[in-house]
Amino acid sequence: MTKNKSHKGIFIVFEGGEKAGKSTVIKFLKDELAKRGLDVLVTHEPGDTPLGKIIREKLLKKEDGVSINPVAESFLFFADRAQHIADVVLPALERGMVVLEDRFSFSTFAYQHYAKGVDLNFLLQADAFARQNLDPDLVIFPDIDPRIALKRGIDPNNPFETAKIEFHDSVRHGYLEMAHNDPERWKVVDASKSADEVAKEVLEIVLNKLKIKK
Amino acid sequence: MTKNKSHKGIFIVFEGGEKAGKSTVIKFLKDELAKRGLDVLVTHEPGDTPLGKIIREKLLKKEDGVSINPVAESFLFFADRAQHIADVVLPALERGMVVLEDRFSFSTFAYQHYAKGVDLNFLLQADAFARQNLDPDLVIFPDIDPRIALKRGIDPNNPFETAKIEFHDSVRHGYLEMAHNDPERWKVVDASKSADEVAKEVLEIVLNKLKIKK
Repeated sequence: MTKNKSHKGIFIVFEGGEKAGKSTVIKFLKDELAKRGLDVLVTHEPGDTPLGKIIREKLLKKEDGVSINPVAESFLFFADRAQHIADVVLPALERGMVVLEDRFSFSTFAYQHYAKGVDLNFLLQADAFARQNLDPDLVIFPDIDPRIALKRGIDPNNPFETAKIEFHDSVRHGYLEMAHNDPERWKVVDASKSADEVAKEVLEIVLNKLKIKK
Repeated sequence: MTKNKSHKGIFIVFEGGEKAGKSTVIKFLKDELAKRGLDVLVTHEPGDTPLGKIIREKLLKKEDGVSINPVAESFLFFADRAQHIADVVLPALERGMVVLEDRFSFSTFAYQHYAKGVDLNFLLQADAFARQNLDPDLVIFPDIDPRIALKRGIDPNNPFETAKIEFHDSVRHGYLEMAHNDPERWKVVDASKSADEVAKEVLEIVLNKLKIKK
């Protein structure tokens, strides 16, 4: 699945729209894997390095009304990714850890290409460079109709959460298309179920992947 | 020279190392062209949009000791460029202005590739996307041995100016190689001469290019 893997860790990414319940699932999974003696790192994009924090807080939130076009925004996500992969993700994988990451490349493609129209070929090339060609072993996608998800409450300061429903539909369509094209690696989970059910389903997928008995 | 030019302006960029006198030349040129009735815009990279100001002040100066690797840094320069081209440079060129820009793509190649070793092919592709394939009509390169230039005084807060001499030599080598490969568009000016002489020589080059009599 992952070619030329240069590390001994396991890299699992969680992709999906707003309020799909990614962070709840990740928290549950972290505890369950730790109970089984695994060394787990939970991380996220954007914002989990000192550089990324500034990019996230000062730029991507757009609180000061700073204009950022979709191409410039893509480059900011890649700057965050290049630093984060080098300083956080790769060192943990090289130590053999299980890395659980909230959002990765596929979010860039879903939001920047499928929803905002940035050229996919450009995004694919720049992204491969930003992530040093590092491939996730597993992509977990808690899928939910944005009409349901957004009823879970939105953050008025988050421009991604306050976007129009058509925007969220395009993002979802993007994720579904990517999942369809890479069924071996992508696991789509019905996130309209209860948080508890979703978390248990994801745990089972991950334990299977890690070949650990329940 | 410039293919598929979609605007009626003239785009002149000024490249070169620290303290080569670019800004003095640009200021002189702006006044001289304005005297001749031309509509001139002076701009610079990075930092000449609200987004660019934050990238320049909060990130590239590294005052807070935020770690930024060369690839992440390249992406920040491209984010700045993508916004700057769209909001500042292209609109001015479409109005038919003469745009004088202090630093453009070739600085990214000189610093990020020639001095810091980032893959040139990646930089070329990402850059073409950031600048919407817009080509400068003329590249002015005031060339000077960094040993002489840096005697003109350095800013202790600018990490580029306080770098080692080998770094500045690599940057200069990069500019000279690019100039050598594109002699029709690049004009190398001996910047060890007096500021006055350099400015007059550049004015002559630009007037020739614009086909304006002195």
